[in-house]
Amino acid sequence: MTTTKKIRTGGRSARIQQSIHQAVRELQATHSREELTVCMIASAAGVTPSTIYRRWGDLTSLLADVAVAHMRPDTPPDDTGSLPGDLLKFAEFYADELGSELGKQLLRDIAATHTSDCTTRCVQLARERLEIIVERAQQRGERIPAVEMLIDNLFAPIVYNILFCETPDSEQQLRLVSQCLHNY
Amino acid sequence: MTTTKKIRTGGRSARIQQSIHQAVRELQATHSREELTVCMIASAAGVTPSTIYRRWGDLTSLLADVAVAHMRPDTPPDDTGSLPGDLLKFAEFYADELGSELGKQLLRDIAATHTSDCTTRCVQLARERLEIIVERAQQRGERIPAVEMLIDNLFAPIVYNILFCETPDSEQQLRLVSQCLHNY
Repeated sequence: MTTTKKIRTGGRSARIQQSIHQAVRELQATHSREELTVCMIASAAGVTPSTIYRRWGDLTSLLADVAVAHMRPDTPPDDTGSLPGDLLKFAEFYADELGSELGKQLLRDIAATHTSDCTTRCVQLARERLEIIVERAQQRGERIPAVEMLIDNLFAPIVYNILFCETPDSEQQLRLVSQCLHNY
Repeated sequence: MTTTKKIRTGGRSARIQQSIHQAVRELQATHSREELTVCMIASAAGVTPSTIYRRWGDLTSLLADVAVAHMRPDTPPDDTGSLPGDLLKFAEFYADELGSELGKQLLRDIAATHTSDCTTRCVQLARERLEIIVERAQQRGERIPAVEMLIDNLFAPIVYNILFCETPDSEQQLRLVSQCLHNY
């Protein structure tokens, strides 16, 4: 009985989350970040504001949650046949994905949240992709770098440059990758 | 006449800016980020809300402006007598400064702003410190790295880790510096 109840609650809970995420995405297409309110989102999703406050605490955390969900790429990283090629594709992917107007807003929402859950999940996604790339390189018999170093010297500068300077162009992407290849 | 007027306006303008910055800092000590409003700040600074909107556009930009003003360090970077030592001190300085609760909030406010002026000034401060460090190393006759590489592989991962993971501890600071020293 308890199990059934749990499953039912889970299903309803997931549907509510989905409709709230959907409402946020639709409202983001027509409203600026400053115009969005919890009441507006609740009304569009057909829930009460308290449902949103109970689950996410505040608007920033909700937006960060939507941002992270959006960032999960559907496909595994490209396999170019070599580690340098795969890392370059990784850099290109994140520069394109996070450097777009929407991508920048997602990063800002994730950076602005006080809950570390969203930020952890965001980092975890990049880490998983790098782990796949490094594992492939190992299977090919290439010399492999530590994933931590790739996070610090490839992913971190991409995110940093997008947030604080300019999205890395192909020249900078190449420079970042080649610096990483000197680092192990 | 015009010049006098300009100077007078400038003086008044600077005083208003100072009193608004001061009001923000005092309110930040007693209120959470979510509680702060433009009206509250205007009232504390003795100005009208429209003065704030006219100058900064929105609350986020005002907070980012205050954040950048706070980040300007009063002292030049420590001179330890060698490039590796100076870079380690630089890493330690920014991990301490930006990794504090206030520092994290400053970074988030700067990252959240849509105006690139604040973000550019924030990056410029770190760049100026690295330029001083590199110039000193050159005067000592040490082999010197490009400031751009130090931004990407030392400052960027510090900021990234503070915003998205954990503030780099002394072990990670050392690793970041030693990676930089392999990169040129």
